Amino acid sequence: MELAEWFGFIAGGIMTICTLPQVIRVYKLKSAREISLIFITAMIIGLICWLTYGIVLKLFPIILWNSINIILFVVFLFAKLKYGIQRG
Amino acid sequence: MELAEWFGFIAGGIMTICTLPQVIRVYKLKSAREISLIFITAMIIGLICWLTYGIVLKLFPIILWNSINIILFVVFLFAKLKYGIQRG
Repeated sequence: MELAEWFGFIAGGIMTICTLPQVIRVYKLKSAREISLIFITAMIIGLICWLTYGIVLKLFPIILWNSINIILFVVFLFAKLKYGIQRG
Repeated sequence: MELAEWFGFIAGGIMTICTLPQVIRVYKLKSAREISLIFITAMIIGLICWLTYGIVLKLFPIILWNSINIILFVVFLFAKLKYGIQRG
């Protein structure tokens, strides 16, 4: 891989993995009042677009990270729908 | 632009713009207890990596969206540091 590709690979990895503590935090606090529903749904739509982009251009890191991130954001969406209206 | 590039462009746009309602929500509620500090800082690091990737490969949409998104996440970071420990 070229240096630029490594940057893309690492960037995608960091941004995917960092979603995990955010999702865990909401489940732990049992509160998602501060989380914007627009943010989560738009992120899922954006991630699906990136996944399509990765599949069309056969870019493995993009396919990998976005697939994982979609799963994480769907779990995040469930947390928002479950705890979103509670004050915690 | 090719169809795949359009997907990338739109995906980046959606994911950047959707950060705005999330940042606004936290400022409005004056509460960022549920927001993970690891999430925000890792996102900023990841976005800087993507920006570097975009600059090296001269990919205009990646440069554009990531520059805007870095600004938004820095504002988000300030909100977290300001309101993060309060109960709201």
